[in-house]
Amino acid sequence: MHPRARHAQTSIFTHMSLLAARHGAVNLGQGFPSNPPPAFLLDAARRAVGTVDQYTPPLGLPALREALGADLNVDPADVIVTSGATEGLLTLALSLLVPTRDGQPAELVVFEPVYDVYVPQAELAGARAVPVPLHLDPEEGWSLDLAAVRAAITPRTQALLVNTPHNPTGLVFSWAELTELVALAREHDLWLISDEVYDELYASERPTSLRELAPERTFTVGSAGKRLEVTGWRVGWILCPPGLGGGLSLAGGLANVRQVTSFCSPAPLQAAVAEALPLARSQGYYAALRADYAARRALLSSGLRSLGAQVHEPQGTYFLTAQHPTWTAEGLVESGAVAVIPGEAFYVTSPPPAGLLRFAFCKSRAELEQALERLARLS
Amino acid sequence: MHPRARHAQTSIFTHMSLLAARHGAVNLGQGFPSNPPPAFLLDAARRAVGTVDQYTPPLGLPALREALGADLNVDPADVIVTSGATEGLLTLALSLLVPTRDGQPAELVVFEPVYDVYVPQAELAGARAVPVPLHLDPEEGWSLDLAAVRAAITPRTQALLVNTPHNPTGLVFSWAELTELVALAREHDLWLISDEVYDELYASERPTSLRELAPERTFTVGSAGKRLEVTGWRVGWILCPPGLGGGLSLAGGLANVRQVTSFCSPAPLQAAVAEALPLARSQGYYAALRADYAARRALLSSGLRSLGAQVHEPQGTYFLTAQHPTWTAEGLVESGAVAVIPGEAFYVTSPPPAGLLRFAFCKSRAELEQALERLARLS
Ligand SMILES: CSCCC(=O)C(=O)O
Ligand SMILES: CSCCC(=O)C(=O)O
Repeated sequence: MHPRARHAQTSIFTHMSLLAARHGAVNLGQGFPSNPPPAFLLDAARRAVGTVDQYTPPLGLPALREALGADLNVDPADVIVTSGATEGLLTLALSLLVPTRDGQPAELVVFEPVYDVYVPQAELAGARAVPVPLHLDPEEGWSLDLAAVRAAITPRTQALLVNTPHNPTGLVFSWAELTELVALAREHDLWLISDEVYDELYASERPTSLRELAPERTFTVGSAGKRLEVTGWRVGWILCPPGLGGGLSLAGGLANVRQVTSFCSPAPLQAAVAEALPLARSQGYYAALRADYAARRALLSSGLRSLGAQVHEPQGTYFLTAQHPTWTAEGLVESGAVAVIPGEAFYVTSPPPAGLLRFAFCKSRAELEQALERLARLS
Repeated sequence: MHPRARHAQTSIFTHMSLLAARHGAVNLGQGFPSNPPPAFLLDAARRAVGTVDQYTPPLGLPALREALGADLNVDPADVIVTSGATEGLLTLALSLLVPTRDGQPAELVVFEPVYDVYVPQAELAGARAVPVPLHLDPEEGWSLDLAAVRAAITPRTQALLVNTPHNPTGLVFSWAELTELVALAREHDLWLISDEVYDELYASERPTSLRELAPERTFTVGSAGKRLEVTGWRVGWILCPPGLGGGLSLAGGLANVRQVTSFCSPAPLQAAVAEALPLARSQGYYAALRADYAARRALLSSGLRSLGAQVHEPQGTYFLTAQHPTWTAEGLVESGAVAVIPGEAFYVTSPPPAGLLRFAFCKSRAELEQALERLARLS
């Protein structure tokens, strides 16, 4: 195997899901929803099967690019559909991270705790992910350390990978913070890759999208799987900086890479998402989902607190991080109680904060209640 | 953009499909079927939507790996499901082609005419595709030139990419030829990557699968899209050399790369293919499809001959190549007659044989007849 594959380890998420099944533990580990996806989406998919079954263009089904353009207020020419956000991120790493003058790997700045896939993707691209720690205050929770970002930038840095709302912390970067990141990116001429797959899953105010602040250098990655609760459908997208006009778009250039990664995204599922996007908006689907998640977040969060955990309230995503003096992810799953993700899974360079665990609350109320009961019995 | 992306150009197949639509030409270019996919597959997909919607393991849905194991007579542990054969081929290039001792790109031997994706995938992997010409005799058609393969192998060669049945020529490598390729691979310790996506689409005898001859070094790439006529579903697979036992499988290692390319394949479509594979076999679906294609191939082939084309009869795939003294792919599509793929699209190093065109016959009889009528009017 190529050494660039060395950072690609069995996914912690898959691993914990397998352990959950083996030990009969409630699975609050891997982030996939337990509740059913919206009926309007499923109906659309059942109609698309048998109708839209052949290759779409690598850039995506035209109807989906139009629907995304309308929903996200961008020119459809700047949209490229990918086989999930994962492939979108890979396409960007392979395309944007170029050889440095000194022959050393290009550098991609990421935040730590870091979503596991960013690091091996940078390696596959022959580059190196440079993690910048988010600050954790026992009382105040997580925050961005701008000085640390500045300190991490070197002449080899080519891009900054922002993830807001952030997995696993649930941190949402403020307008002011993003403005400072943009200033840094402009100063050092860096690309901005903004993983905004949880864009509709926020707790209070709608997160600022980085593209609004730096359209000229921002690639936004999104996901129908997260928005519409179908994580296995593999329909994601990249919004590229506006094209150069005359049919010349960055999306066109990226599509040439994307077409050799998986050629196109699943055709009938693209068609279903195209139909569902305007319906989700007009029917208030996202607002209802947020309200529902707020209730489940409160249930889990207060339950964990009452069991002695220090909970760091998330501002977005369907995850929360918590610290507990005695729980370990291994111990919790092996006892058959609950599967969660250990803090270590998100740390590459530094050790994780003591007792850090990530809990997913995209699970049914019944599962959350059962998890809390089992944890209570352990305590 | 990274220079490794320079070989990734807009897909000729997508390009010709767009031109066909623009000029109202019959599309015999891109290889996607016009006839509907089998009802048992579509029914299974409609049932899977709403049931199997969340992430599957990166290795694939267990039921699909079992079904593939049974259908292809391999251990399910050696099967890895990919987002179409395209992603399977990319995963293999990224994993198997390793840095050479002298710092020069690793070499992957491919046959020319070459399916367009092999070359840019090798580049993305930091390697180089080395095309070996297939021989074309005006009367006898295409054949393998073993001496040319032998001459192309250097100390940097790491893998040989075989494609049988071969796109675009329709050539099927014989047992004897494959045996000689295996001997070469063993002599030089090369991996064998065998793109067998057209394995069920053969004209007379069932093609030998390379894995039967060299299980220890063969990675076989397959495709539900081609077998079940749903090219847009993105369900493909890799069969890996048998595992080392004790849970140690090459599939496991590759899955770690594949999980950062698109994490997993579309879940409901994987479930549908799992259900359809045994039905396709028990209902004689492939045999019926072959009979149907034989009739359409004969229609197209005799029609083209009567218009003065030299047709090279394919032994497999749903393509045929032909040479004509005056037709050009550009001329044919721009006149609004027929879209076909120009020979140049499959040649990287050498010029294509004069007047070479590829025609797809995975189109309806009505389309084939209309195409022939329009060509007759041009002649
Ligand atoms: C792609 S598996 C991981 C799913 C997820 O986003 C998470 O659990 O963090
Ligand atoms: C992936 S688009 C090309 C489809 C195909 O296999 C062909 O036309 O050769």
